[in-house]
Amino acid sequence: MTETITIGADALLRLKELLQNRAFSKVAVLVDENTAIHCYPQVKPYLPEHHLIQIKSGETHKTLQTCEYIWQRMTELNLDRWSVLVNLGGGVIGDMGGFCAALFKRGLYFVQVPTTLLAQVDASVGGKTGIDFHGLKNHLGVYKEPVAVFIHPGFLQTLPQREIKSGYAEIIKHWLIADGDMFEQQRTIGLLTEDWEELIRHSVEIKSAVVEADPLEGGYRKVLNFGHTVGHAVESYLIEKPDRALLHGEAIAIGMLCETYLSVKKGLLSQDALDKIETFLVSVYEKVPLTEDDIQTISRLSLQDKKNTGATINCTLLEKIGHAVYDQPITLQEIQESLRYYQLL
Amino acid sequence: MTETITIGADALLRLKELLQNRAFSKVAVLVDENTAIHCYPQVKPYLPEHHLIQIKSGETHKTLQTCEYIWQRMTELNLDRWSVLVNLGGGVIGDMGGFCAALFKRGLYFVQVPTTLLAQVDASVGGKTGIDFHGLKNHLGVYKEPVAVFIHPGFLQTLPQREIKSGYAEIIKHWLIADGDMFEQQRTIGLLTEDWEELIRHSVEIKSAVVEADPLEGGYRKVLNFGHTVGHAVESYLIEKPDRALLHGEAIAIGMLCETYLSVKKGLLSQDALDKIETFLVSVYEKVPLTEDDIQTISRLSLQDKKNTGATINCTLLEKIGHAVYDQPITLQEIQESLRYYQLL
Repeated sequence: MTETITIGADALLRLKELLQNRAFSKVAVLVDENTAIHCYPQVKPYLPEHHLIQIKSGETHKTLQTCEYIWQRMTELNLDRWSVLVNLGGGVIGDMGGFCAALFKRGLYFVQVPTTLLAQVDASVGGKTGIDFHGLKNHLGVYKEPVAVFIHPGFLQTLPQREIKSGYAEIIKHWLIADGDMFEQQRTIGLLTEDWEELIRHSVEIKSAVVEADPLEGGYRKVLNFGHTVGHAVESYLIEKPDRALLHGEAIAIGMLCETYLSVKKGLLSQDALDKIETFLVSVYEKVPLTEDDIQTISRLSLQDKKNTGATINCTLLEKIGHAVYDQPITLQEIQESLRYYQLL
Repeated sequence: MTETITIGADALLRLKELLQNRAFSKVAVLVDENTAIHCYPQVKPYLPEHHLIQIKSGETHKTLQTCEYIWQRMTELNLDRWSVLVNLGGGVIGDMGGFCAALFKRGLYFVQVPTTLLAQVDASVGGKTGIDFHGLKNHLGVYKEPVAVFIHPGFLQTLPQREIKSGYAEIIKHWLIADGDMFEQQRTIGLLTEDWEELIRHSVEIKSAVVEADPLEGGYRKVLNFGHTVGHAVESYLIEKPDRALLHGEAIAIGMLCETYLSVKKGLLSQDALDKIETFLVSVYEKVPLTEDDIQTISRLSLQDKKNTGATINCTLLEKIGHAVYDQPITLQEIQESLRYYQLL
């Protein structure tokens, strides 16, 4: 784990120390209407003099238009290259705040203070920043490391159960790609766990180790994309349908089911492993009904995935529980077949 | 000089070889309506199968809105991370094309083929990409190196004399900050030079050496900002006034006069050196009339400069002809005084 990630009850205190010691010229805090109410009051006592920038919450606002507003506020506040932006929120705030900071005057400092389980175990680690563009997830972005990441598990108490489940999907993904023993141990406990801090620490360790080995995703880092080829397409498709929109982890849970199915179909994984993963995921996540029309459109969307080479869809699959292989070519038809499998569960 | 910069009559042939050897998945060429007519026909025979993306020329289009159009076209063309964008144009095309490539899917390859003297001796070298934002020059950007730069001096024959003079200002700047002998030798020849290729090579060598020593502008690279504190402010101010808009180098020539004056005022430079520089610059560049109102607004604009720390304006000044010093604090009043000096020339 890189030294710049602090996890635990002392995270906010460490944030305070950093902001004191580094003598940034100005401090701005990016929040949305939820974190402004539920998280900012907890953080405020630890902050020096600062300015607030508030945006609307949700993936639908992770756009160039919102960035324009943030950049306008940063300009009004006269932030310079020695200022720092504190991103207080979930994945959208972290990804978009990092993106805005990375570009403003060719690079401002930024700090991640993730407030959702999803952002704590995934988005805040690894230096990817970005926004959506014309409905395509993280279509624009840069690699840029924050000055530091502060993970305060206390924020989880402010989260609805649906948000917890969404983050839990990325935790499960980390077990499936890198730690089969942990999967075995945890699948009987599930969401009844009493030690989120330990689960977060374990997940961050896995992700950090992968990112450190391959920061710019030349190869190995792609193991983290397990569940994301189909998952991103499902998420992009349903985000346009207000009543059916999924949280990121909910879509990734579907993606993991489909891609586990494909792992078996490709002869990489045993049927027994599929049964175990299927039983566990179905026990945690409600089934999302998809029509044949939905399936057609979702599979076509997966062609736009950043990880593809030309017309070939590159997917990360499982070889066993705890070990993933990347760059596995799959066809549009196979994606459709996996979604039909999911429909029949 | 980095190995990736090719200067000379064989530049287009080298471009052809690169595009053949690297086997990019797709090739897109960014042009504006001028380079589409005057430069693209010269380059086309050297290109493999490719797509054209055409935008409107000029600094007023170096905006987020134009980027949105470019990203939309890149999405339609299904460019992936193994595609390359060839930026065929002046500084606007190079800066904005590099910016768009750096952000699309977190980074596409790009190649610079600068077609103006200004872009050949300055913008294409050094890895700065960017766009203007709300009238502020290069307010958004990232550092990102192109795969290679191809400088074909033949393009200069397509340029109006005003464009040549604009690029010449950056050449003069390179002499003033790094090579006093060259200034002495060239100031009597001026625009009558018969060897642009040699002048370009010399300028690129100076810029490359500075950038190599300090790629992210932690310190020394700031010597390249000589003339740019006042120059950028003049340029930003006049760009809003259609009949008075200056080319970049024309504004930098004014900036160099003002900042040479300030170098003397600060006791760094001799009056004799100012006289020499003044005589030369006035012989090349027409005087631009500025009212007292203009001077007030321009000096306030210089407060937004990216190079400032809080309220202090940091300027690069000359210690002698051929040697610059950076991070020299100057006041709003001194900027006004220097602009009044310019008015009295």
